[in-house]
Amino acid sequence: MTLLEERIRRDGVVRGPDVLKVDSFLNHQIDVELLDEIGKEFYRLFSGENVTKILTIEASGIGVACIAAQRFHVPVIFAKKSQTKNIAGPVYTSKVESFTHGRVYDILVSKEFLRPEDRVLLIDDFLANGSALQGLISLVRDAGATLVGAGICIEKAFQPGGALIRSMGVRVESLARVKALREGIGVEFL
Amino acid sequence: MTLLEERIRRDGVVRGPDVLKVDSFLNHQIDVELLDEIGKEFYRLFSGENVTKILTIEASGIGVACIAAQRFHVPVIFAKKSQTKNIAGPVYTSKVESFTHGRVYDILVSKEFLRPEDRVLLIDDFLANGSALQGLISLVRDAGATLVGAGICIEKAFQPGGALIRSMGVRVESLARVKALREGIGVEFL
Repeated sequence: MTLLEERIRRDGVVRGPDVLKVDSFLNHQIDVELLDEIGKEFYRLFSGENVTKILTIEASGIGVACIAAQRFHVPVIFAKKSQTKNIAGPVYTSKVESFTHGRVYDILVSKEFLRPEDRVLLIDDFLANGSALQGLISLVRDAGATLVGAGICIEKAFQPGGALIRSMGVRVESLARVKALREGIGVEFL
Repeated sequence: MTLLEERIRRDGVVRGPDVLKVDSFLNHQIDVELLDEIGKEFYRLFSGENVTKILTIEASGIGVACIAAQRFHVPVIFAKKSQTKNIAGPVYTSKVESFTHGRVYDILVSKEFLRPEDRVLLIDDFLANGSALQGLISLVRDAGATLVGAGICIEKAFQPGGALIRSMGVRVESLARVKALREGIGVEFL
């Protein structure tokens, strides 16, 4: 998606070979007009799939997921990173290793909202090592729901997540695929 | 806002005198069409205020904030609950006590995105003890920005947060003000 690649080139900041900061428009400050274009593109890619639910993970996937969901006219579910007083009753859980925070945590979704008849589209801002996406896939499979694919804003294609998830037979659509991050030079796309 | 009150009456679940579960439409599963009506109402209330930024806190405020921001045509910033590799550089911080999680945590916003010339609208899903809102207000004041007010989906008006924040001179607009939660009976609104 040219618009997103251009925005990454303009406003993304490369902080070493692994770290791309996009916090001025995607995951700290959020440009909702850009998110609307991203949502439109996910809809173009997955509109034939009869999606019934969009599933993401807190926190930075929520904005993209909600604005994309307006196109699909379906609810968003966001997997939570810890048990709270406000989720009671049965849940699906899985484990996710966070590259950004350097730890492993549980994610959970209430069984009430993910049903065998659901056709689920996963949406997230980044795909790097694929741990978050694997966790979400596991929740969908535990629910016996149908996984239609994953819509990703930025894939770090030099990290193993994309290949891993595609090798599981999951359709992954990444709107910007980063080939390399070169500090002081910039971002190379596939 | 009648639509929201009706939805709370229909789909909210009262779990004791303090706990109102709205996770089927607001903060776990999200009804984006409802969020759009909520965003429209916040815009009606604050459209005269020349808002330049909407500030919320991860995670459950993000969806409402993003969809409201589409009406205002301004960016969203969400305060983060912990330092990550992806926020480098100077930040404003404050402390928030979570009623839901039973602990105190730091929230932070990059100084880059909250500027003295900004006119900031706070948005969140719940107002109960007011700790999250106080934390956000403190970030706005530290930045020297102008606080135009707070737009809240559900205020638990029997808890002290609303009175506390209003006594600070902050304009608080809550779309549903809960007077009492009665298990087995339901929700009473102000």
